[in-house]
Amino acid sequence: MIRTELCDRFGIEYPIFVFTPSEKVAAAVSKAGGLGVLGCVRFNDADDLEQVLCWMDENTDGKPYGVDVVMPAKVPQEGTAVDINKLIPQSHRDFVDKTLADLGVPPLPEDGDRNEGVLGWLHSVARSHVEVALKHPIKLIANALGSPPKDVIDQVHAAGVPVAALAGSAKHAQRHVDNGVDIVVAQGHEAGGHTGEIGSMVLWPEIVDALGGKAPVLAAGGIGTGRQLAAALALGASGVWMGSAFLTAAEYDLGHRRPGGTSTIQEGLLRATSADTVRRRIYTGKPARLLKTKWTDAWDAPDAPEPLPMPLQNILVSEAHQRMNESDNPDTVAMPVGQIVGRMNEIRPVADIIAELVSGFEEASRRLDDIRGN
Amino acid sequence: MIRTELCDRFGIEYPIFVFTPSEKVAAAVSKAGGLGVLGCVRFNDADDLEQVLCWMDENTDGKPYGVDVVMPAKVPQEGTAVDINKLIPQSHRDFVDKTLADLGVPPLPEDGDRNEGVLGWLHSVARSHVEVALKHPIKLIANALGSPPKDVIDQVHAAGVPVAALAGSAKHAQRHVDNGVDIVVAQGHEAGGHTGEIGSMVLWPEIVDALGGKAPVLAAGGIGTGRQLAAALALGASGVWMGSAFLTAAEYDLGHRRPGGTSTIQEGLLRATSADTVRRRIYTGKPARLLKTKWTDAWDAPDAPEPLPMPLQNILVSEAHQRMNESDNPDTVAMPVGQIVGRMNEIRPVADIIAELVSGFEEASRRLDDIRGN
Repeated sequence: MIRTELCDRFGIEYPIFVFTPSEKVAAAVSKAGGLGVLGCVRFNDADDLEQVLCWMDENTDGKPYGVDVVMPAKVPQEGTAVDINKLIPQSHRDFVDKTLADLGVPPLPEDGDRNEGVLGWLHSVARSHVEVALKHPIKLIANALGSPPKDVIDQVHAAGVPVAALAGSAKHAQRHVDNGVDIVVAQGHEAGGHTGEIGSMVLWPEIVDALGGKAPVLAAGGIGTGRQLAAALALGASGVWMGSAFLTAAEYDLGHRRPGGTSTIQEGLLRATSADTVRRRIYTGKPARLLKTKWTDAWDAPDAPEPLPMPLQNILVSEAHQRMNESDNPDTVAMPVGQIVGRMNEIRPVADIIAELVSGFEEASRRLDDIRGN
Repeated sequence: MIRTELCDRFGIEYPIFVFTPSEKVAAAVSKAGGLGVLGCVRFNDADDLEQVLCWMDENTDGKPYGVDVVMPAKVPQEGTAVDINKLIPQSHRDFVDKTLADLGVPPLPEDGDRNEGVLGWLHSVARSHVEVALKHPIKLIANALGSPPKDVIDQVHAAGVPVAALAGSAKHAQRHVDNGVDIVVAQGHEAGGHTGEIGSMVLWPEIVDALGGKAPVLAAGGIGTGRQLAAALALGASGVWMGSAFLTAAEYDLGHRRPGGTSTIQEGLLRATSADTVRRRIYTGKPARLLKTKWTDAWDAPDAPEPLPMPLQNILVSEAHQRMNESDNPDTVAMPVGQIVGRMNEIRPVADIIAELVSGFEEASRRLDDIRGN
């Protein structure tokens, strides 16, 4: 058993919150006793999100689930993709083209869809995600970029749904709670995606203490096993927020498949060690931890340009990401992932990952009892 | 109670190993039930170390203690200080002089000793430390830079003393054990001083699993409270290795004192947050986590030179460090410290720090019992 106050509050068996872009994984997590949180940023068209949430409603056996949006607190440059494209220097485009050619990345198939860049972190798009999501029986809206704007928090609260926000420092966490955020995700340096500089071991208890019980804290960054879950709860967290560890779940069906059945991205993840990540601005314009590949190496070379600010950088590299991730070569994928990737060495069903988290937690707790002489 | 196999092996009450350059702190740790480990790198003259170890023998009530040396596995550039000085470019010296002038750092007093640079990580000096230490009843020799050379390991083992070595990756840890090292200190990214890129939450269990019981693991990097100690043991460590948290111990008497009684360095540490560290090559030539100050900012400026390789960089900055640390201005100290500095907000006796570690561990373990429904 792993029971904290969040279990009763959300009607879940385990305080395990899993962020995932895959509705198959999100549904499996919820059915296994955790809370699946579907990442919305990949849905440039709100109608696609609507369809997927209808699928979730039909495939979660009435278990609770949530959604995750990417909404900067400050409104960034807005406009259509065409306007924004004009802000990208030609020299940056040339660097991307040359790098793809040097790395031998094949072009997209003639008849394939072109990815226009992730627009999900434009306010207008993220707001459409919130509106669509609130028509479904979601139990949580999380924002990957901190506090959403106040009117969005009010809108979500009016629907009776709590708001979670990621924080990389105690100051951010306090600000989120002041803004009305209900649950803080304390995300350490080890984490995949946007992450700060303070390691989980220091950050989690610091945020727990800074909030002093005003909001429960979910620990994120470096969690893949039950021992790490036990450490998070020992440090005062009320639950965990995981992401990377479920990218190699058997149910994860996004991405181009290789002959063996895994995706090119999964192949890259399976063979990576914990040393094979880098934290760079090249994915979105803000520092995010990524799988280290020949692509990230190219951006580390002396001739590489400085990454552009959000949202321009992702629009610049978006088609490149698509080309790399749809090839068969795991040396040149583009993927955010945390240092826990070193432990992601096999494809496992979601239920197995959750079962290990539970049994590993119990073992670790008993180990501490022995050490305590209890 | 906190009892692991290391308690019996070392005759200590708690598996808390504390690295400290202060013999006063080391002795107090050993008397409080942990293992004080005296850092030797500051002793350029082995006779000074001899005197201090005699003091330790007289002031530890027969409790066990250890020493820590800084010995690269590969023999670096050797020679007298005069020879090595010739390898330092004049442009680097000019940058240091200009920075000190810009920051208003006063010169050393006319009659003061000039620090020639820390020679303790030259092989000849570190070997003299080992020889002196082995004449005393030490219970551990740790090496801050990984495996010592094989003949040194043999020499230490012949005296019946175990060897510990710091590791920042599972590969390093395995190599240490293959080389005959008895105890591995798994040091995460959060740590002060020389440290790698993998966060403690990921690194500790990875090293524990990689060694598979062949050697006990001490967890280092981010530990300052009993909750963090509990997390370390939950993750499979057999004990903890701490350093930073004891720099603000009441017994710590090194460094220039300000009117209030604390040292200039302590004043800088007390007011720092967990965000106020940087990991840079500017202290020794290898990446080390340092207190962020106007001095580290100066080396981050676009006009700053690239740091020199070990041991040249420390020789370059050694007198600058001395000048800054002997001034009254905490804005311009030079000091390695981990991210746990954000929690070092008061001067406390060693016994109080140890007492909190013990009670905090017990509370965290009981908290997990409640969550487990035990």
